[in-house]
Amino acid sequence: MSHFADRLLQAIEHKGSPICVGLDPVLERLPESLRDGVSPGRGEDAISAIEAWCNEVLRLVAPVVPCVKIQSACFERYLWPGLRTYQRLVAEARALGLIVIGDVKRGDIGASSDHYAAGCLADPPYTDLGPVAGPDAVTVNPYMGADALEPFVRIAREQNKGVFALVRTSNPGGERIQALKTSDGPAVADRVADLIAETGDAAGLIGSRGYSLLGAVVGATVPADAARLRKLMPRQIFLVPGFGAQGGGADDVRACFNSDGLGAIVTASRSVIYAHEKQDTADWRSAIEQAARDMAHEVRAIIP
Amino acid sequence: MSHFADRLLQAIEHKGSPICVGLDPVLERLPESLRDGVSPGRGEDAISAIEAWCNEVLRLVAPVVPCVKIQSACFERYLWPGLRTYQRLVAEARALGLIVIGDVKRGDIGASSDHYAAGCLADPPYTDLGPVAGPDAVTVNPYMGADALEPFVRIAREQNKGVFALVRTSNPGGERIQALKTSDGPAVADRVADLIAETGDAAGLIGSRGYSLLGAVVGATVPADAARLRKLMPRQIFLVPGFGAQGGGADDVRACFNSDGLGAIVTASRSVIYAHEKQDTADWRSAIEQAARDMAHEVRAIIP
Repeated sequence: MSHFADRLLQAIEHKGSPICVGLDPVLERLPESLRDGVSPGRGEDAISAIEAWCNEVLRLVAPVVPCVKIQSACFERYLWPGLRTYQRLVAEARALGLIVIGDVKRGDIGASSDHYAAGCLADPPYTDLGPVAGPDAVTVNPYMGADALEPFVRIAREQNKGVFALVRTSNPGGERIQALKTSDGPAVADRVADLIAETGDAAGLIGSRGYSLLGAVVGATVPADAARLRKLMPRQIFLVPGFGAQGGGADDVRACFNSDGLGAIVTASRSVIYAHEKQDTADWRSAIEQAARDMAHEVRAIIP
Repeated sequence: MSHFADRLLQAIEHKGSPICVGLDPVLERLPESLRDGVSPGRGEDAISAIEAWCNEVLRLVAPVVPCVKIQSACFERYLWPGLRTYQRLVAEARALGLIVIGDVKRGDIGASSDHYAAGCLADPPYTDLGPVAGPDAVTVNPYMGADALEPFVRIAREQNKGVFALVRTSNPGGERIQALKTSDGPAVADRVADLIAETGDAAGLIGSRGYSLLGAVVGATVPADAARLRKLMPRQIFLVPGFGAQGGGADDVRACFNSDGLGAIVTASRSVIYAHEKQDTADWRSAIEQAARDMAHEVRAIIP
């Protein structure tokens, strides 16, 4: 198995578009037929319905997209049985040949940071616990500094995996901390970007195509920020949420790519997985497939 | 059940010292007798040994301390069976009458933030999934702004629970982001403190003793910071890690309290739960009990 960035770029070339479908399942938005048997207050019913649906979504999008991002929060709300489903889906998606990003946004220090890296990213060493594969990459929160990143980067290096650190998020509330100007001029997000570039560009972390295994989450709703962050982190692959449902458009997304047309992967969740809500069709499967194809086409047309 | 801050202060008065014991179990550091039956590579063996030990530690410290903090990362490294153990221990600790902080450091936006609050803090509405109680409070990461806090604060208000937002962490690496000076002068951590005070001091969130259900994590290794943050957040209860093993001393801790002697709870993990390593005794139970008593005494002597 080769370097994470090389694998991701290869998968993007193979499928023809740098996109990622986010699995953020919410019971209330599943196609009605799947919700029929779920009794209120029965968590096992709910998480089973969600698992069945996610497995179908994975099969529908696998031929079209290189990558999926699975939102841990949606599963954790169903406590440990939810995490079991999340971990099964990670293994299932990898078995389908998809690059799998576990959207866990963990961040801690010292030994706790090691534990999170071992539990959320590594291929587990246990022979008796559930699925055998961790995701290909995870998202992490850098507020606690390099300590929050290093164990993840170490495991990524050892197991040919990747890490995406939050730098600039797509929500309006993120502004309040991330857009603060520091006394030297740059915004807090820019200084986080410096930390990510410095940590991610160390010896042994860059793949054969010039990209690091440590990437960055950069929301597609602030184009001026994206252009600036692109310059600060030339070797980071950007994971770009906010396209579609969150309001990000073509210009916002374009600024996230390098001039070689590489360096970013655009992710959308609700606009794809809940496509059946808009299209007024009983055939939710075709609605999702079509939405994934449309998104692939749309993003391909944007790339520099 | 009353307001979280009132309950916490009452528990502190009842037990006589504002301390919290952190459960950060690591297999290698358990008393040897408990590790005997664990085969390498068998996750179920490891997590069972950890659960048995944690249950004993809870019973040992419950008569001495008002509060425990359970580190989710240590359990998540054992995948979903680890989370099951974590969730059982939360319920067990609450049943012992302890105030329980789930140290989960989650942070996300929009619906994902709602899901984390539901999964990590709320008392679950399911009748069929594992334990019936969420923790009394959780830690959260504010890098994504108010969005990352609000669902937790809402559930805390509805269910008389609490939230501790990371403001200034005790690790040297935290410096790099949290101590950055902003263009107006204050450090990033101070601006995060403003956000916490503003969010936490809204109508309906302050208890009868004047403290908010939204508190702050402020490391006990930077005393000048603590004094400044104490002024910026007079109504926040500080959860103060870094005492003991991480190097925080009396002066660092003192600055975290208000002049009324309230407003902080000091947490230590390794110096208590691994006390048997230092004391060269076969009786690890007495070593832990004694270390908890010593810590209670030490912190009581520090309070203004």
